[in-house]
Amino acid sequence: MKFTTELPVRFGEIDQAGVVYYPRFFHYFHQAFEEWFRQALGVSYPDLVLNEGIGFPTVRIESEFLRPLRYGDRARVHIEVMDVGRASLTLRYELVRLPDEVLSARATIKTVAIKNATFSSVSIPDAWRERFEKFRSA
Amino acid sequence: MKFTTELPVRFGEIDQAGVVYYPRFFHYFHQAFEEWFRQALGVSYPDLVLNEGIGFPTVRIESEFLRPLRYGDRARVHIEVMDVGRASLTLRYELVRLPDEVLSARATIKTVAIKNATFSSVSIPDAWRERFEKFRSA
Amino acid sequence: MKFTTELPVRFGEIDQAGVVYYPRFFHYFHQAFEEWFRQALGVSYPDLVLNEGIGFPTVRIESEFLRPLRYGDRARVHIEVMDVGRASLTLRYELVRLPDEVLSARATIKTVAIKNATFSSVSIPDAWRERFEKFRSA
Amino acid sequence: MKFTTELPVRFGEIDQAGVVYYPRFFHYFHQAFEEWFRQALGVSYPDLVLNEGIGFPTVRIESEFLRPLRYGDRARVHIEVMDVGRASLTLRYELVRLPDEVLSARATIKTVAIKNATFSSVSIPDAWRERFEKFRSA
Repeated sequence: MKFTTELPVRFGEIDQAGVVYYPRFFHYFHQAFEEWFRQALGVSYPDLVLNEGIGFPTVRIESEFLRPLRYGDRARVHIEVMDVGRASLTLRYELVRLPDEVLSARATIKTVAIKNATFSSVSIPDAWRERFEKFRSA
Repeated sequence: MKFTTELPVRFGEIDQAGVVYYPRFFHYFHQAFEEWFRQALGVSYPDLVLNEGIGFPTVRIESEFLRPLRYGDRARVHIEVMDVGRASLTLRYELVRLPDEVLSARATIKTVAIKNATFSSVSIPDAWRERFEKFRSA
Repeated sequence: MKFTTELPVRFGEIDQAGVVYYPRFFHYFHQAFEEWFRQALGVSYPDLVLNEGIGFPTVRIESEFLRPLRYGDRARVHIEVMDVGRASLTLRYELVRLPDEVLSARATIKTVAIKNATFSSVSIPDAWRERFEKFRSA
Repeated sequence: MKFTTELPVRFGEIDQAGVVYYPRFFHYFHQAFEEWFRQALGVSYPDLVLNEGIGFPTVRIESEFLRPLRYGDRARVHIEVMDVGRASLTLRYELVRLPDEVLSARATIKTVAIKNATFSSVSIPDAWRERFEKFRSA
């Protein structure tokens, strides 16, 4: 099972080259990550962060940028789970450019569950592990 | 006395029209505000926020955008104090486009001193008032 | 008739004070402006910019910030037309914080229709004027 | 030879976790890249983009985030050249957190020289190749 969400490219997200400034792809991925929690995992990321004091900061990225995104395009972002470790969660993102359905970018992003108060890692509870595993890539 | 600082226009700050996306002018003004504290007021804004628990959120803006900024331009930002109330600080910003020294934008921005913990307003201490008054417009 | 759209507050839009960094309110307003074109005016803003070579840069703002937005809130943005001049379009924005439905910010933003190629003002065609007028404030 | 530049962490660059939002690390790297051209390579990146019509979009990233950056920190960014191919330029970035001089993040970022008009790759001219090679890692 993959999670999928869509985002419009905004007027202010374009750079001097006339394409989406590449750091904003990671903002798109983070927005998709937040939507995954809200729409598919049964708890909003704000609740997790604010009420449970847990966060998932990024510790490692591998990514490729294949085709630029332009103003008027939309980004369809897919998320799959690659690995759930004791405290780590590794996700695979694919960003498909719409309307032409071309793969624009992909990334493997490793995050670690932490207590926000101390930034120390915490074990991912079994209830969470199960929810994440439903989105494991085939 | 005016405070003056300069900022480059960055590659990723341009919008689809090929000019600096106007919300970023307010980010430029805020960066100039932070530099004013650091360079001219004798305390860094991070110290004020983190150690004294004080902040100056914006409550009112009047601004005009006269000429666009493009990639390769620099922004020279001037700050003057318009008013220091019990808890409020009203600043006047002028953004001059370089290298051609044309006035690009100006803004009057009213902020209020607050305790960050509660967002309740606090009286501006006399020591601070004096430092601000040195930058009052003639 | 008012146009209304909603936006989530994102994890990366928060500043050191734990509230939405105020320049991003203008990014929210611009996103609402883009949605107004797409959903209500019968042409997308990308089409207008890219195919007709027309844009509406901001020339004047008056705004007030009444209540902060925090992570987990949503922003409901209302747009009304205040004035349609020969080349100018003045809009009124209200940003209501959800879920508590408190007015967070309001702004009057004057834009001018330009040819993107030259940044010279152009008369607003009658067909556009009529569409804008439908959203004039009562 | 390494290129080194420093950037302050800004008030609006912090996320809900109280640290620099990780996509902004790539904005820091891009700012350092622009400073490298301006300060060390003898041509500004705006000149290259606007006058020569050449750009270096990112095609591949590997990065690690080791320690968070907080408000009040500064970022010291080092750039070294890892490889100069026919059309590609691969750079190594290290971001050292100040004042405590701890390695915060590192990234290997591959870019490709393109003509901006067409996004087609172009051979890196020998004059440029020589300038880049001076910053090759030992």
